[in-house]
Amino acid sequence: MNRKGIIIVVSGFSGAGKGTIMKALTAKYDQYALSVSATTRDPRPGEENGREYFFVSNEEFEKLIQEDGLIEHAGYVDHYYGTPRKFVEDKLNAGIDVILEIEIQGALQIKKRYPDAVLLFVMPPSAKELVNRLKGRGTETDEVIKMRLDRACEESEGIENYDYIVVNDVLEDAVERVHGIICAAHNTPSRNQNFIDDIRKQLLELSK
Amino acid sequence: MNRKGIIIVVSGFSGAGKGTIMKALTAKYDQYALSVSATTRDPRPGEENGREYFFVSNEEFEKLIQEDGLIEHAGYVDHYYGTPRKFVEDKLNAGIDVILEIEIQGALQIKKRYPDAVLLFVMPPSAKELVNRLKGRGTETDEVIKMRLDRACEESEGIENYDYIVVNDVLEDAVERVHGIICAAHNTPSRNQNFIDDIRKQLLELSK
Repeated sequence: MNRKGIIIVVSGFSGAGKGTIMKALTAKYDQYALSVSATTRDPRPGEENGREYFFVSNEEFEKLIQEDGLIEHAGYVDHYYGTPRKFVEDKLNAGIDVILEIEIQGALQIKKRYPDAVLLFVMPPSAKELVNRLKGRGTETDEVIKMRLDRACEESEGIENYDYIVVNDVLEDAVERVHGIICAAHNTPSRNQNFIDDIRKQLLELSK
Repeated sequence: MNRKGIIIVVSGFSGAGKGTIMKALTAKYDQYALSVSATTRDPRPGEENGREYFFVSNEEFEKLIQEDGLIEHAGYVDHYYGTPRKFVEDKLNAGIDVILEIEIQGALQIKKRYPDAVLLFVMPPSAKELVNRLKGRGTETDEVIKMRLDRACEESEGIENYDYIVVNDVLEDAVERVHGIICAAHNTPSRNQNFIDDIRKQLLELSK
């Protein structure tokens, strides 16, 4: 079966560990590629153009939108973020599953444009554990933690739009669960239409 | 997460190996139970009531239907086959995934009554391989093989009604793919609504 890649959208509460899971997943299995977003925000110290993000100007970002160069985009605080189309489609055609770490607005745009995309929502085992992890970073003030919790409350309203939830209890287990979900998704009839059509043709031929 | 069992419906061409896969799966993992169908046909030598089938009379079968004692039933050749409801629902409530090996008519009845059921269709890697396996049994006449191929042609028209196809190339791999598909299915939002609602409540509480 000459399989095509799947778009995997990953959202989740800040502090739930989605970035860590995806890094471990792509390091462990070579069937995945992480999409790199374009953004109009400035690079932070240590960030590299083309690695964390493609850093572009407002004009460049708008041009990308006009040219259908982004498969989703959204505003967040006062900057834009978007997913360049070419990278994603090249990988899909090469049979690579592409992971997009984006927010719900983008996730819904992707589902509309690519109904076969698989949407994952990463969750902590409990809200208390989320707070512990945010506090454990040691860099977040109480105010920031309160802000992240408020945002998590909001985001939690959208969970039913996702195809799967991934509970990040033990990192290694969560990585395997994500991998299992994607492997399962490769076995739907719609993703194997050529194979099914071939079998039908062969059966007709043999039963003549 | 106090998880509920899932109904797993398995159909597939005669000779594709669905019985073998399911036997290996239930032997390997204790999260599964095989449902035992009721039938009006006579037991064959070696078959035991309650093991291969519950052997019942036409009257008993009709009574089961009237009492809503069957979650699906279908006629096949000149006998009836059906799935007793109580066994399935008891297992589901105990968190056990229940496997139903049934034909497409039954599969569609189950999907209607239990939309959360997962429908699998087992296929050979090629039609030629199916013929080889049927011939390999050594017990099938050319006429019977021709009949099975005709039936496979017919059945293949229904594949798109299933949630997943399972290609039975190497038995052990096919078993693991089925297991992976079911494990993935346990992670949908609809099968974890209590957990999601709890997290929402906790987040609201903590962000007060």
